[in-house]
Amino acid sequence: MKQQRCIGLAIDEADMSEFNIQAIRQAASRLQGRVVRTPLLESPMLSERAGCRLFVKAEALQLTGSFKIRGALNMILSMDRTARHAGIVAFSAGNHGQGVAAAARAVHCPAVIVMPDTAPRIKVDNCRWWGAEVVSYDPQTEDRVEVAQRVARLRGMTVVPPFDDYDIMAGQGTCGLEIVEQLNDLHVTPDAIVINCSGGGLASGVSEAVKDAFPDARILIAEVLGYEKVARSLATGIPQSNPSVPNTLLDGIAGPTAGAKTVAVLRRHQANGLGVSDDEGLAGVAAAFKMLKLVVEPGGAAALGAVLVQHPVNRLNN
Amino acid sequence: MKQQRCIGLAIDEADMSEFNIQAIRQAASRLQGRVVRTPLLESPMLSERAGCRLFVKAEALQLTGSFKIRGALNMILSMDRTARHAGIVAFSAGNHGQGVAAAARAVHCPAVIVMPDTAPRIKVDNCRWWGAEVVSYDPQTEDRVEVAQRVARLRGMTVVPPFDDYDIMAGQGTCGLEIVEQLNDLHVTPDAIVINCSGGGLASGVSEAVKDAFPDARILIAEVLGYEKVARSLATGIPQSNPSVPNTLLDGIAGPTAGAKTVAVLRRHQANGLGVSDDEGLAGVAAAFKMLKLVVEPGGAAALGAVLVQHPVNRLNN
Repeated sequence: MKQQRCIGLAIDEADMSEFNIQAIRQAASRLQGRVVRTPLLESPMLSERAGCRLFVKAEALQLTGSFKIRGALNMILSMDRTARHAGIVAFSAGNHGQGVAAAARAVHCPAVIVMPDTAPRIKVDNCRWWGAEVVSYDPQTEDRVEVAQRVARLRGMTVVPPFDDYDIMAGQGTCGLEIVEQLNDLHVTPDAIVINCSGGGLASGVSEAVKDAFPDARILIAEVLGYEKVARSLATGIPQSNPSVPNTLLDGIAGPTAGAKTVAVLRRHQANGLGVSDDEGLAGVAAAFKMLKLVVEPGGAAALGAVLVQHPVNRLNN
Repeated sequence: MKQQRCIGLAIDEADMSEFNIQAIRQAASRLQGRVVRTPLLESPMLSERAGCRLFVKAEALQLTGSFKIRGALNMILSMDRTARHAGIVAFSAGNHGQGVAAAARAVHCPAVIVMPDTAPRIKVDNCRWWGAEVVSYDPQTEDRVEVAQRVARLRGMTVVPPFDDYDIMAGQGTCGLEIVEQLNDLHVTPDAIVINCSGGGLASGVSEAVKDAFPDARILIAEVLGYEKVARSLATGIPQSNPSVPNTLLDGIAGPTAGAKTVAVLRRHQANGLGVSDDEGLAGVAAAFKMLKLVVEPGGAAALGAVLVQHPVNRLNN
């Protein structure tokens, strides 16, 4: 009980002085010209299906196909010369690894990506293509965080965490800053923003940027149905994990744990959870393909699919 | 012989006073905020495969999935109120029809699209979704141009031609103006630009915009291999048709005739032909899907595929 309250306090009273809209603006200034300013797409047919005017931030068009390079590059650019020269290490079987590898290449910084020896060959090859060294581990017998920390210790490298870090969150938040600028250009004030969420790096950063500009916008967090660890964290005030690994197509948002820092930001912005089924994720993939001409993985299309099937924004207003 | 020379003169000495960079700038001003400013994408992996720094203009992200709305909307916005109120008519089984229908809807102008009764249901439905009336004809017994002209005469409507018209060419040229601005933002001077080409509306408009900014850039025109009607028109100075309908996956660029006005512009800019095979088009589709996360039809990926397989720019320099 005492421990629980202690963690609860950690969420609600986390020191926010390091994470605010200024941190995101600084990140945007660092990333200027180094990442893609992805378009905010609108399809009248898609809006009709959604039952509202719908905009889709096409982050699939980002370098390496996901938002992950934003946070990683912001963190590397925030490091001092000595640390950058020594290099970085990250653990990931997915988009984070490629994002970190591409970020490291952009600033000529050595990078090690720790990947399970079961990782698909294409993901290993992609990390190597970007110039990173891949260190394999056996997920049956080894812990990836320990492997990464050992590499970091032995080589004097810095670990780039996947989400629960203010530099990472600020970097992902630049995606939200672009959304704000793009909506302002269209003279649109959003009622709500729905964000795909695993650990909460993207969701917290984007929420911070959007709420700064549009304080009345509702924040909705798309998670794997039945495994809503962030929604449970928001409700209880205690960072939650999923008790088992979800068997889902939405693997891109099926990470095991929520972050303490990310959840604190989402709680401050009164985010609401939104459970997404595999079928809804596939509906998002199909709609993106047909109406937006975008190739998106199921986890990346979860929020879109849920908006098209569940109409959650109308539900919020009622 | 006399007739040939006469047509040859028509190409070389066409009155260009109506078509120049100013016409494209005026079109851009008319279209401002009404069409998508599509991103110019760069993928380091794709550039490696191409053997040069390669940029792809992602016009698949345009409204209705192709550039066609640009020209149609520019033409409608150039018409006087009475003509616009009476409406427009276009003949098309493909992207032009949807582009015209969407353009008409944007300015609340009645539209009739003349389509063969063999057209896919989805294309008919899409035109209707945008608010257009679809008039069917039997391609075995009727001529689509005559059907469209009859509708126009009976209803006082204006025919929106698919390519050989200065307003259409200027509208498609706004795509080239965006490319110029996007390359300037990156401080890049292109060696060459490769453009998908059927009748030449996009190719002539984009060439005009690009050559105005980058006079040394080479213009390459991607056509169906073995059916290079525009390349033959450029070589002979006489607008050519294809003697038969190509059996090709690249149906988006397999129209039967080249335009006199479009070829005149391409000839002035010393465009070179580039024949593209089905396999090369499919290589472009696959590369766009995997590396750019874009869904593109084979005709829309012809230039990309040819660049990846043939390396035509290196060949030009040798």
